[in-house]
Amino acid sequence: MPAFSIGVDLGGTNLRIAAVTSEGQLLEKITLGTQVIRGRDQVIQEMCDAIQQLSGKYRSSGRFLGAGIGVPGIIDMATGMLRKSANLPGWEEYPVRAEIERRLGAPVVLENDANVAALGEQWLGAARDVPNMAVITLGTGIGGGIVIKGKIWHGMNGMAGEFGHVTVEPEGYPCGCGNRGCAEQYASASSILRMAREAIAGGKAPGLARAASSDPEFGAKSVYNLAIQGDQPARHIFRSFGRYLGILLAGLVNVLNLDMYVIGGGVSSAWDAFAANMFAELRERSLVYAVTAPHDPLTTDVPGGKRSSTETDDVSQRVTIVTRALLGSDAGLYGAAVLASQNSPDR
Amino acid sequence: MPAFSIGVDLGGTNLRIAAVTSEGQLLEKITLGTQVIRGRDQVIQEMCDAIQQLSGKYRSSGRFLGAGIGVPGIIDMATGMLRKSANLPGWEEYPVRAEIERRLGAPVVLENDANVAALGEQWLGAARDVPNMAVITLGTGIGGGIVIKGKIWHGMNGMAGEFGHVTVEPEGYPCGCGNRGCAEQYASASSILRMAREAIAGGKAPGLARAASSDPEFGAKSVYNLAIQGDQPARHIFRSFGRYLGILLAGLVNVLNLDMYVIGGGVSSAWDAFAANMFAELRERSLVYAVTAPHDPLTTDVPGGKRSSTETDDVSQRVTIVTRALLGSDAGLYGAAVLASQNSPDR
Repeated sequence: MPAFSIGVDLGGTNLRIAAVTSEGQLLEKITLGTQVIRGRDQVIQEMCDAIQQLSGKYRSSGRFLGAGIGVPGIIDMATGMLRKSANLPGWEEYPVRAEIERRLGAPVVLENDANVAALGEQWLGAARDVPNMAVITLGTGIGGGIVIKGKIWHGMNGMAGEFGHVTVEPEGYPCGCGNRGCAEQYASASSILRMAREAIAGGKAPGLARAASSDPEFGAKSVYNLAIQGDQPARHIFRSFGRYLGILLAGLVNVLNLDMYVIGGGVSSAWDAFAANMFAELRERSLVYAVTAPHDPLTTDVPGGKRSSTETDDVSQRVTIVTRALLGSDAGLYGAAVLASQNSPDR
Repeated sequence: MPAFSIGVDLGGTNLRIAAVTSEGQLLEKITLGTQVIRGRDQVIQEMCDAIQQLSGKYRSSGRFLGAGIGVPGIIDMATGMLRKSANLPGWEEYPVRAEIERRLGAPVVLENDANVAALGEQWLGAARDVPNMAVITLGTGIGGGIVIKGKIWHGMNGMAGEFGHVTVEPEGYPCGCGNRGCAEQYASASSILRMAREAIAGGKAPGLARAASSDPEFGAKSVYNLAIQGDQPARHIFRSFGRYLGILLAGLVNVLNLDMYVIGGGVSSAWDAFAANMFAELRERSLVYAVTAPHDPLTTDVPGGKRSSTETDDVSQRVTIVTRALLGSDAGLYGAAVLASQNSPDR
């Protein structure tokens, strides 16, 4: 059996741990109900127990290369500490990587969750074999990761890829970051909910109002369900979502000219409600996209579909692909695992 | 004497040719009045004559490594042809590089003018020894170039760095590219002139109106002169300019997290009229800048001043520098020369 590594996804609600071979085969995946809110020390304890359980189990059949951990927040790559994390209170200023390495006796890499998701999609997902790509993760907020020549582009101090806080509407909604009009105020799950509440308050969205009052779990998904049933106010929300996502994407395409942009995160499953508007905006607002767009961008959404950008040696003929992520929430697990494997001195 | 190469700046009005040693010493610079409008063949003839004159003159004292040519437009790096150039009519679909190589009998590199300007500033200008940086060139339009690990980042097909067409105002002014609200409609020389004309037409800018009617060469520089004399409508124009440049920059900083952003081009000389607003917007709109900004960003404008981003090994302590270009219109000449030298098989 080939060597293997462990990928960890330290999310806000779950802790997931997977053993993955260096060839990309999933050996085993564990999902723990560990609530991050219960505190750093308990989470680290449960994480290390699970890693040791998995690594012990498969060690007899292949070399263990180490663990990669995807965490929400900005990581100081040099020290392996969290510089800033809204979702992991109490984790800052603590030697996370060193402590886990000490407990495991194996090399550990800490990486931003959007970055490992990008690497995962590049390794085994929508951008397989695509050297230069970015992932835009549409969740409660918007995350981003850039891969250049097969490696995560960290920027100067690990903060590259903050797509969610790019201004898309100069005088727009205030954002928690201190800015106004950030992309994540217009193209995230929370923005869908905000727009739905505004529409309900405006009194012209009876379908949304009914759903909101009858469904205790009313959220972005409820708005999507109404949109695909033809509810006009719900459709309008996703059109606006697509428009602003298109503005964000157009900027990225003009600046970066990457081979592929992968749209991931929970809200990417609402693709058919926003993609048409996203592509329309992208084509209008990016001259780079206008001259490099495939004839039918939406067909590139087909898993395993045509990927012109990597199928031709003629650089000038390469097209810009914008497509859905393929690995769902496993992207980060795979990305963390491959990072551990790339990072291993034994590799 | 060390080896040398030739850098060429094929601008809209002048043709400039320089012989530069591989150590960055200028040997000689020729400026020809060649009007690009007189046609491709004549320009190529005069360019080749000048390159041969210079290379012949210095060949006895050092090896000639080849020529680099900065051109306005999108270049197909594989074929050495221009894919698109608004300012060089008749140059598309013509084997520019092959033809010049044939005439010179030496290796030739063709490169976008904003990209060579970025490389020039990175070699000998404001970003000396800064591995990851971008140049924003403020001229009639806005050009852009990105350098990553000391090399121009071309993107998939040579179109990276189209900063001028990033949307900064979704429902803004129409742009020639087909979009609305492009950065170059708000932070270029032509946008300054448009805003001045609008202010004059509005009847509330007597100073601008007087200057426009008395000065046959009324332009961005005239507006600047009024602004530094305290004329309020002129100052307002540069405040708006700084604001939108700040929005553009904030997006770049959030996405790329580079060490340095160099503001070049003719309009960068109006720095003191727009920099304060640019920095205010940047700090408000980029959470990456907010946590990586130097204490006093404006002091980094001092040539040879402190460049914290390259002076520390502690990555987390590195700061984001936004500063003026140092080489003026020579940046492209030097960048083209160093490109030829990097490209040389004899190097």
